Amino acid sequence: MFRNRMPRYEILSPDAINVLDKGWRRIVSEIGIQFAKPEATDLFRKAGQDVDGEVVKLDPEFVLEQVAKAPSEFDVQARNPANNVHLGGDQMVFSAVYGSPFVREGEVRRDATLQDFRQLAMLSQTFSQLDSAGGVICEPNDAPLDSRHLDMIYALQTLTDKVYMGNVVSGPNAVDTIKMTEILFGGRAAIEATPATISLINCNSPLRWDDRMLDAQFEYCAANQPVVLTPFLLMGAMSPVSIPSALAQQLAEALSGIALAQLIRPGCPVIFGSFLSNIDMQSGSPSFGTPESAIGLYCTGQLARHYGLPFRTGGGLNSSQTCDAQAAYESLMTLLPTFLAGTNWVMHAAGWLEGGLVSCYEKFIVDIELLRMLQVEFTPLEIDEASLAFGAHEEVGHGGHFLGAQHTMERFRECFYRPLLSSTANYERWLKLGGKDATARASEIVTKTLDAYEQPPMDEAIRAELEEFVTRRRAELGD
Amino acid sequence: MFRNRMPRYEILSPDAINVLDKGWRRIVSEIGIQFAKPEATDLFRKAGQDVDGEVVKLDPEFVLEQVAKAPSEFDVQARNPANNVHLGGDQMVFSAVYGSPFVREGEVRRDATLQDFRQLAMLSQTFSQLDSAGGVICEPNDAPLDSRHLDMIYALQTLTDKVYMGNVVSGPNAVDTIKMTEILFGGRAAIEATPATISLINCNSPLRWDDRMLDAQFEYCAANQPVVLTPFLLMGAMSPVSIPSALAQQLAEALSGIALAQLIRPGCPVIFGSFLSNIDMQSGSPSFGTPESAIGLYCTGQLARHYGLPFRTGGGLNSSQTCDAQAAYESLMTLLPTFLAGTNWVMHAAGWLEGGLVSCYEKFIVDIELLRMLQVEFTPLEIDEASLAFGAHEEVGHGGHFLGAQHTMERFRECFYRPLLSSTANYERWLKLGGKDATARASEIVTKTLDAYEQPPMDEAIRAELEEFVTRRRAELGD
Repeated sequence: MFRNRMPRYEILSPDAINVLDKGWRRIVSEIGIQFAKPEATDLFRKAGQDVDGEVVKLDPEFVLEQVAKAPSEFDVQARNPANNVHLGGDQMVFSAVYGSPFVREGEVRRDATLQDFRQLAMLSQTFSQLDSAGGVICEPNDAPLDSRHLDMIYALQTLTDKVYMGNVVSGPNAVDTIKMTEILFGGRAAIEATPATISLINCNSPLRWDDRMLDAQFEYCAANQPVVLTPFLLMGAMSPVSIPSALAQQLAEALSGIALAQLIRPGCPVIFGSFLSNIDMQSGSPSFGTPESAIGLYCTGQLARHYGLPFRTGGGLNSSQTCDAQAAYESLMTLLPTFLAGTNWVMHAAGWLEGGLVSCYEKFIVDIELLRMLQVEFTPLEIDEASLAFGAHEEVGHGGHFLGAQHTMERFRECFYRPLLSSTANYERWLKLGGKDATARASEIVTKTLDAYEQPPMDEAIRAELEEFVTRRRAELGD
Repeated sequence: MFRNRMPRYEILSPDAINVLDKGWRRIVSEIGIQFAKPEATDLFRKAGQDVDGEVVKLDPEFVLEQVAKAPSEFDVQARNPANNVHLGGDQMVFSAVYGSPFVREGEVRRDATLQDFRQLAMLSQTFSQLDSAGGVICEPNDAPLDSRHLDMIYALQTLTDKVYMGNVVSGPNAVDTIKMTEILFGGRAAIEATPATISLINCNSPLRWDDRMLDAQFEYCAANQPVVLTPFLLMGAMSPVSIPSALAQQLAEALSGIALAQLIRPGCPVIFGSFLSNIDMQSGSPSFGTPESAIGLYCTGQLARHYGLPFRTGGGLNSSQTCDAQAAYESLMTLLPTFLAGTNWVMHAAGWLEGGLVSCYEKFIVDIELLRMLQVEFTPLEIDEASLAFGAHEEVGHGGHFLGAQHTMERFRECFYRPLLSSTANYERWLKLGGKDATARASEIVTKTLDAYEQPPMDEAIRAELEEFVTRRRAELGD
């Protein structure tokens, strides 16, 4: 977990915030939000809101009253207490790519498998820059559809000792996640007291929360497990082709989902979610790492702080088909703004390629390097008399060099960032080392990291109980 | 020329600025600055400073009095008035890579030639994101050493109609640049009234200004042509391994060089220069795109504003040997902070590779894409009632899509950034198009751009006069 104690980059004036505030209020009250689950509309009706079929027209003041019940910061426990995380404030919590049906490994792009899932979990466990492997690090296509959530949760629980994300495909899958979490953390009371999963609830934007996502949300909120309520906005498709319009819509959707969470269980932890980019209006394909997405990201951070909520946005997003220059610059075009905005919960922070369709091994390493660099860059500089090293200037004088200065000799091991992947070798040496580009070197780092991986220790009774649960549920599900 | 009307990212507290301010004062007054040119030390002696051989111990208040004579903003004219630039304030002026002995073109790395120089000038002319080709876009190794500055200036004057940089290898080379500039702009008075070149004067850090650079500086300052007084600081070699120490040294060197400029010609235009990174303490090689360089960059912008000076820093710097993911992320790790700092004069903004040893054609295109994206990202968002596009939400409602909405149809051509290089093609289409990565596509853009290049029109009498000058001087120089 990284504390970002550097200044936030904020670009919205108070007037602009006011315009956006009016914008979401008008959307929720005049157009309303669709909730495709009777239990949801029932809760809103009982709370005095205007319900017509699945559409709820919300009083903005009511929404804000509910939002005010959500904690502005909260903890999530990991099975290794050293990996517990705190969501909110100046904390930044990073998790790996989520939801990709394919993997890329060098020149090969293929369907993801459970073995890929496990390997990506092992990489996530190894690198301290990630606080979580996330949830669906890739879609294990070779595991039966009905029960693969069990395989994924079990892998996350056993191969990592970090925070993990819950399954949201259905209400029963959420229940399975919660039950397995109860086994791992010592029962329902323990995880209600301190949550032990985070789950991603996407809006079917525009302005519609779907039944399956709501089913999962009801289970997680009732169990006091945080949900990341995320408008899924590719401008041009799921929102108008205007950043302010998308921001107002994002507020309308996220705040309405948070209001529902607070009706399900007042005070339950939530995260204001944002997944905001645009489509390429020429091809219709999603674009990532765009200027528009960076602007949206800066604004989202500022708005989440305005409403007093921990927030999610950013990551290593890109549209590139391979781990090339485009993949790198688009990712950083998102990831550096993620730090400038001080995002609390960062998904897709490692491994994302091809608009999220691909989890890429080499890209995973590129992103770890970016996280390592940015965590150094966003650590405040200490500037005092001693840091001026006046004695070194006296020692070296005019036109000399500092390589052998006492001040240098005392600090040379730790004074600068030491790269994982980047090479500063001169051309001749680089050629001698094989003339490998960053992606080829990343591939070698993947192999070395997996070879060196050691499974974190686990209570064997708990492991047996988890295995027994998975076996029983798999049978019940007919797989 | 780009106006950056977004907020600056500032990380120094008033206390920190105060510590750094004391730092440079102590360096210039107690250790002093070496000026390896008698005319320079004479000027300081006459102004009452303490001169011992080549070392001048400076009164900090005297330095600041001189610095105060430098204009905080000024114009530089191009032969096409549409390409005139303004240095200072919220203006950002971009020029291409400078000083590389090698070029890379795809898999081939070789000595740069005059033909490369011309082609890189043509690329610089074509892309509006660059305000200048710079000066030594690459070192034309196949042209005779003594007279190649004439070939370079002539190429910059004829193949581009943008601002160009002067030669600084020697005093006579500077005089040749100035004479050729007089020919192009209608005489000495015209270029003294509004400068028409910018020249890079590097400090031989630590704390030493060399004779050849000073010879050039004297010529340019006397002719009222701006100089970019740039401490050349790779921490660990030319400065201590501490960012605050390097920042204090940078102030000492830059401000002392600016003080000299004002003694040569009071009121002459100058730019506070910064070239600040670190060496890799394992290999001894220079590192670029490091967290340390980004931190230094944010601080440099803030300090330059503190002393009321236009400033230079940043660019597309990287250490990578090839145009790969590392080249891209290191470059953006410098270029995005360059925008956040609001740098006025940005060198190496396109084409830099391998620590500046290589001018790379494909990297040039990658950098142009980065500049295009950042210029959109750093354009303030207009947020008003109309931008909320409420009507589009009413039209589309819940769970629909905005692809065919009236608001979208009216704006789809111009609503989002349109990439030059980046691809959003889906995987199948990308394969069908040849499965080319960003670098391969950049190579195609280079070819197309050079094929489509048209030389900007020029008065034939002026061209003849320039040619005659070059021919005569070449003969005088024995080439």
